[in-house]
Amino acid sequence: MSGAPVLEKLSSNRVFEGELTKYKFKSAALGGLDAQFNLFMPLNPGGAKVPVLVYLAGLTCTEDNGAQKGGFFGVAASQNIAILFPDTSPRGAGVPGEDDDWDFGTGAGFYINATKPEYAKNYNMATHITVELPKVIEAAGIAIDWKRQSIFGHSMGGHGALTLYLSSTTKQYRSASAFAPISNPTKCPWGEKAFKGYLEGGLPEGAKYDATELISKATEPLHILVDYGTGDNFYKQGQILPENFLKSARDAGYDEFQVRVRSQEGYDHSYYFISTFASDHVHFHANFLKARKQPGI
Amino acid sequence: MSGAPVLEKLSSNRVFEGELTKYKFKSAALGGLDAQFNLFMPLNPGGAKVPVLVYLAGLTCTEDNGAQKGGFFGVAASQNIAILFPDTSPRGAGVPGEDDDWDFGTGAGFYINATKPEYAKNYNMATHITVELPKVIEAAGIAIDWKRQSIFGHSMGGHGALTLYLSSTTKQYRSASAFAPISNPTKCPWGEKAFKGYLEGGLPEGAKYDATELISKATEPLHILVDYGTGDNFYKQGQILPENFLKSARDAGYDEFQVRVRSQEGYDHSYYFISTFASDHVHFHANFLKARKQPGI
Repeated sequence: MSGAPVLEKLSSNRVFEGELTKYKFKSAALGGLDAQFNLFMPLNPGGAKVPVLVYLAGLTCTEDNGAQKGGFFGVAASQNIAILFPDTSPRGAGVPGEDDDWDFGTGAGFYINATKPEYAKNYNMATHITVELPKVIEAAGIAIDWKRQSIFGHSMGGHGALTLYLSSTTKQYRSASAFAPISNPTKCPWGEKAFKGYLEGGLPEGAKYDATELISKATEPLHILVDYGTGDNFYKQGQILPENFLKSARDAGYDEFQVRVRSQEGYDHSYYFISTFASDHVHFHANFLKARKQPGI
Repeated sequence: MSGAPVLEKLSSNRVFEGELTKYKFKSAALGGLDAQFNLFMPLNPGGAKVPVLVYLAGLTCTEDNGAQKGGFFGVAASQNIAILFPDTSPRGAGVPGEDDDWDFGTGAGFYINATKPEYAKNYNMATHITVELPKVIEAAGIAIDWKRQSIFGHSMGGHGALTLYLSSTTKQYRSASAFAPISNPTKCPWGEKAFKGYLEGGLPEGAKYDATELISKATEPLHILVDYGTGDNFYKQGQILPENFLKSARDAGYDEFQVRVRSQEGYDHSYYFISTFASDHVHFHANFLKARKQPGI
C-alpha cells in the first residue's frame, strides 16, 4: 500500500464502558474492494495505548456477529482491552461461483491467501488481518498498542486464530483461543473444499493453514485455549476435530499449561455457547496482553 | 381455554448454567394461531420451582432478539431465575394491512388486547402474556413458581412491562423495569398509531395502556427501574418520553426508591445499550423475586 486508505466511520454505539465503531475502507489486500470491520475501544480514561484482541468469526458471518452476540464487551472494558472484528471474506469480488455455497466464497474466506488465479486477487484474508488492518487502524491514529495483540475466533474463525498465531514468524500474537475451531481442516469436508477451491496446491498447500499440522512442528512456548461443546452437531459430523489438534499438541510436547483443550458438556455450536465462555477467553488473553512485555513460560 | 394446548419443542441450546428452549403452541388468546416463545431455565440442581422474569421485546422483534443479544443469561443463571421471551405480536392473522408498516401490525402488537373488530380476534398480546403463557407453561409441568413473576422489556416492550405491571389488579408482577420504554404512548407517534389502529375507542381507550397515565392513579407500593440513553434517536424524536413518566410518578408521590428513572449518557436504542445494563436489571428483579413472599416497601 502506498499511503494509508481513509477510514470511513459508518456507525458507532456506546456499549458498556466503551464504544463500538464500524468502519469501511478500500482494501488493497482484498484487491481494492470495500472492507468493513468493527472496533471496540474501551473508554480508557488514561489515554495510553491499549492492547487488542482480534476476533475472527465463522462461516456465513460478518464483522457483526461477534459484536452483537459474543458477550465480550463487559469484560473487555473492565480489562481495558480493544477488540477488532474483521469480516470473514471479501465482498463482491465477482468471481464466478463465489456466492453458490454458504461454506465457500463470500462469507467463507478461511483466513488464508488464495493462490488459485481467480481468487488470488481478492481472497487474501490472512494479509488483510495480520498486516493491513493494523496498518490502516494505526495510520488513523487510534490508540492501540499493536505490540500487544492476541487473537481468537469461532469455528472457521477459530481455525483462523490458531493458524495465524501458530504460523506467525514474528510472534505477532501473544496468545490464541478458539470456540469450536476447525482444528484439522485438511481432514474435514469444510477445509478440504476451501483448500481445494482457493489453493493451487490443494490440500498439500493447505497444510500450512492447518492448526494440527502447524502445532506438530512448533517449538516455541505457546499460550492456547480451546473450548468445544459435546452437543455441537458440526463436532459430531467431524468438522471440528479438536482431538486431532490436542493429540498433535501433546505429541509435540505441549502440556495442558501451554495448550488447553476443554470439552464442554452439552453446549452446541451457537453464540449461546460462545457467550457462555466469553469471559473466560477474554480473561485468558488479558493474562498476556496486560504484561508490558511478552512473557515467557 | 378448555384443556391446555400441547407445547411443541422446536430447539434447545445450553447457555451458561441453563437451557434455552424454543416452544410453539396453538394460542387461543391469539385466535388459534401458532405462537412461539423462548424459555430460559437455570440448571437449578435443587429442583425447586424457580421465579420467572418476563422479557418483552420491541418493534419488529421476535422471541429471539432478547435471547440472542440481551446478555441476560449469565446473571439469570447465577440468580437461579427463569426468563420467558414471548413474541411481539400474532403471526399470520391475515388482517388486511397488518404487514404494511414496521411499527404496526405484525411485530408490533403493543401488548394490548385489540377492540377493533378486525384485530380483536388475534391481537390479544396482553392476555397472551399475563394469562395464557403462564397457564400453558404450568400445564406442561415446567418448574416455575408463577407467584414469583417480574417483568421487563425494551421500547414497545418496556411500555408493555410497565403497563402490565401497573394495571394488574392481582399484583401479578413483583417488579417492572424497562430499557427506553415508550412511556407515554398516547402522546407519541408510535403509540397514537397503535391505539388508533387497534382500539375502537382510540386514544381515550389507550389511556389504560399508557404508563404515564396509569402511574398518575397508582396508590400501591411500586418497584420500577427505567434506563434510557441520551444518544437514543427515538428518545430525541419524542417517542420515549421518560420525563413524562417520571414527572407523573413524582406527582403521584413515588420517590426514587420506588420509581427510579436513569438517564444514561451517550447510549442509544440498540441491544448494545440493553446488554450494558442487563445485569443491573436482572439483579434489580432478583431483589424481589428471591423473597418467598411479596415484600412491602
